[in-house]
Amino acid sequence: MKKLQDKILSDGKVLSESVLKVDSFLNHQIDPPLMQAIGEEFALRFKNDGITKILTLESSGIAPAMMTGLVLGVPAVFARKRKSLTLVDHMYTASVHSFTKNETNDISVSKDFIQQDDVVLVMDDFLANGQAALGLLDIVEQSGAKLAGIGIVIEKGFQPGGKLLRERGIRVETLANIESLENGTVSFFGEANTQ
Amino acid sequence: MKKLQDKILSDGKVLSESVLKVDSFLNHQIDPPLMQAIGEEFALRFKNDGITKILTLESSGIAPAMMTGLVLGVPAVFARKRKSLTLVDHMYTASVHSFTKNETNDISVSKDFIQQDDVVLVMDDFLANGQAALGLLDIVEQSGAKLAGIGIVIEKGFQPGGKLLRERGIRVETLANIESLENGTVSFFGEANTQ
Repeated sequence: MKKLQDKILSDGKVLSESVLKVDSFLNHQIDPPLMQAIGEEFALRFKNDGITKILTLESSGIAPAMMTGLVLGVPAVFARKRKSLTLVDHMYTASVHSFTKNETNDISVSKDFIQQDDVVLVMDDFLANGQAALGLLDIVEQSGAKLAGIGIVIEKGFQPGGKLLRERGIRVETLANIESLENGTVSFFGEANTQ
Repeated sequence: MKKLQDKILSDGKVLSESVLKVDSFLNHQIDPPLMQAIGEEFALRFKNDGITKILTLESSGIAPAMMTGLVLGVPAVFARKRKSLTLVDHMYTASVHSFTKNETNDISVSKDFIQQDDVVLVMDDFLANGQAALGLLDIVEQSGAKLAGIGIVIEKGFQPGGKLLRERGIRVETLANIESLENGTVSFFGEANTQ
């Protein structure tokens, strides 16, 4: 998605060979028109898949998931990273390790919102090691719902998550797939990802 | 906002005299068209206030803040509840106690995203004791920006937050102001809130 790649090139900050900071438009400050364009792009890619629910993880997945849900006309559910006192029992849970934050969280989703007859699009802002996606897939599996695929805003293609998921036969749609952050420069995988 | 009040009456669950569960459309599963209508309503109420930024708190504030930002044409910033390893220094911070979760979190916002010349609309999904709003106001004050007001999706008007904020002369716009959850029933304050 060219608009997103251009935004990454103009406003993203390469902090190291593995860390790209995009907090000016994606995961701290949100650029709403860009997020709308992201939602439209995911909706286009999954429009023929009979999606009934979008499932993401708080917090940075919420904005792209909601915009995609708005265009597809389906609800967006966000997994919570811990139980709140008003949400107990009756939950699917999975464990997710974050290498960035070096911590493991339980994530949970109410059984009310993902059910056996759902067709689920899993979404997240980043795909790196794939841990968050695997946790969300675990929840989809527990529910008995059908997985349509995974929609990722930015994939760090030099980390193993994308390969791991695709080797399982899962459809992964990435809007910007980063080949490398070496020498302080963002480079994307080839033209297939620059539409 | 009648559409929201109707949704609360049809889909909200009164768990006790102080707890209203709205996780089927607001803070766990999101109803995107309702959220769009919420964004349009806030944008209408604040359209003449010269807003340049919306400031909210992860996670449940993100969806209404982003939709309001989309309509007003301004970015939405969400405060984070703890520092991540990619976000250090150069932050405004404040403490927020959650009575629901019985825990205190530091919230933080990068100094890059709220600045002295901004006019800020603070938003959140719920207003009860006002602790989250006070934390966000603290951050606005630290930045030197101008506060336009506070936009709240659901106010629990029987709890002290709204009174506390309005007594400080702050403009608080609430889309659904709940007078009572007694006897398992949601009742709203009078007609002023049912447009």
